Amino acid sequence: MNNMTYHQAAQLLAASVKKANEIGIPVCIAIVDHGGHLMAMARLDAAFGIIDFAIKKAKTAIMFGVDSDVMGDIIAGAGIHSYGMINTNDGLMTIPGGVIIKDANGENIGAIGCSGGTPEQDKEIASAGNQIIL
Amino acid sequence: MNNMTYHQAAQLLAASVKKANEIGIPVCIAIVDHGGHLMAMARLDAAFGIIDFAIKKAKTAIMFGVDSDVMGDIIAGAGIHSYGMINTNDGLMTIPGGVIIKDANGENIGAIGCSGGTPEQDKEIASAGNQIIL
Amino acid sequence: MNNMTYHQAAQLLAASVKKANEIGIPVCIAIVDHGGHLMAMARLDAAFGIIDFAIKKAKTAIMFGVDSDVMGDIIAGAGIHSYGMINTNDGLMTIPGGVIIKDANGENIGAIGCSGGTPEQDKEIASAGNQIIL
Amino acid sequence: MNNMTYHQAAQLLAASVKKANEIGIPVCIAIVDHGGHLMAMARLDAAFGIIDFAIKKAKTAIMFGVDSDVMGDIIAGAGIHSYGMINTNDGLMTIPGGVIIKDANGENIGAIGCSGGTPEQDKEIASAGNQIIL
Repeated sequence: MNNMTYHQAAQLLAASVKKANEIGIPVCIAIVDHGGHLMAMARLDAAFGIIDFAIKKAKTAIMFGVDSDVMGDIIAGAGIHSYGMINTNDGLMTIPGGVIIKDANGENIGAIGCSGGTPEQDKEIASAGNQIIL
Repeated sequence: MNNMTYHQAAQLLAASVKKANEIGIPVCIAIVDHGGHLMAMARLDAAFGIIDFAIKKAKTAIMFGVDSDVMGDIIAGAGIHSYGMINTNDGLMTIPGGVIIKDANGENIGAIGCSGGTPEQDKEIASAGNQIIL
Repeated sequence: MNNMTYHQAAQLLAASVKKANEIGIPVCIAIVDHGGHLMAMARLDAAFGIIDFAIKKAKTAIMFGVDSDVMGDIIAGAGIHSYGMINTNDGLMTIPGGVIIKDANGENIGAIGCSGGTPEQDKEIASAGNQIIL
Repeated sequence: MNNMTYHQAAQLLAASVKKANEIGIPVCIAIVDHGGHLMAMARLDAAFGIIDFAIKKAKTAIMFGVDSDVMGDIIAGAGIHSYGMINTNDGLMTIPGGVIIKDANGENIGAIGCSGGTPEQDKEIASAGNQIIL
């Protein structure tokens, strides 16, 4: 039924929580399935404004099929017309930290978003489970 | 900073996930802090329509300071059409399964909501961590 | 420009806060102007779910020009078709506690809503400033 | 129960209303608790479009744990289009005038937002109660 299993989401979330604790920053991490719907989520004592950042990063990635920062590059390249894009779909988040999740066949099955650190840290934390075979 | 820590939320979520697996039903479980903001969440391969059920049950509990089914009794007792209470706060969920979380001092620090089973199962799963001293 | 002055709202709010303290219950009190827009508000340590109750009671009163419980009677009398009414305008609240505010000329200039006590207490608190000449 | 008491909110609101009257401009002032929920509010005969400015400034501050203008600096520093941050959480307000409220222990317990004057005036009015020991 679901394109991503909770078991898969839980593995990825655990890897990202572990990485966040290693780096030592409070972040929010959200995982969405192929339809952009929340599968798992953890807020490591971060301010609550960051919840929506993490969810929107993950949704931005899966709804366009590319990492959130790639979508940011696409929109930035679009020039003045890009203003409309950022406001679509209840608001995109195009800063690094929204990362596509692929299964063993290379299919996009969801995305993971992280917020609370620098853009580079957020991307590193979101990508922490990338080597796991799903 | 936060009124509930992620450590506390993770303990409760683990207890509820374990209970759901024992019962063997796919549910969604959401934990919110004292302000009603998401702390942790797990969707055990349940349909995505249930996400909002779980979150709204948890929010309904903490925003009124009583379990979601107690709020349901209050509203049912109010008579015809519940006077619109059910439509407030972006929609209440007053079915069993939204359970107040208290700390060691007996203070309300958040709530946990579960949806996907029968009302009785949802309440049992949401309450699975009740004996944990936070 | 505004049909109600802050000075007027502040007088009424003070009278209602005083009455709530006399009764000794934590309530939320909200005052809206003729356009249904918030003028003044006080939450006396009540649970945050009650904020929307108080605001919706006040809005329900001024948007139909009658106290919230009168609107409740009208809707109850409408029978099955009433279900639609309660869902309009982002949700009505038709329980007692939303009271019309009139100026010295008898014109409706706003409304005050109270929630947190029994319906009777809420109405008494909301009406506490009724004798003040505005 | 609440992380901020109404007594605390009322003291801060009174200080800000006094300051606004000294400056002589009609503003809207809103105070939210740690969860971003309204505690007290006063609209000094300002246009009603300003209500949402004041509330959003206060919410922006507490949901990120910094004054609204600091959040503005963070977002401005993020470069082009702010990557959509401004659209999160139902819309941030990052102009000056949203000020964090701390208790005697230095903990964030809420925020106060003011709108209707210049950004500098709004910040001055919102900060008027800063010296009060809560």
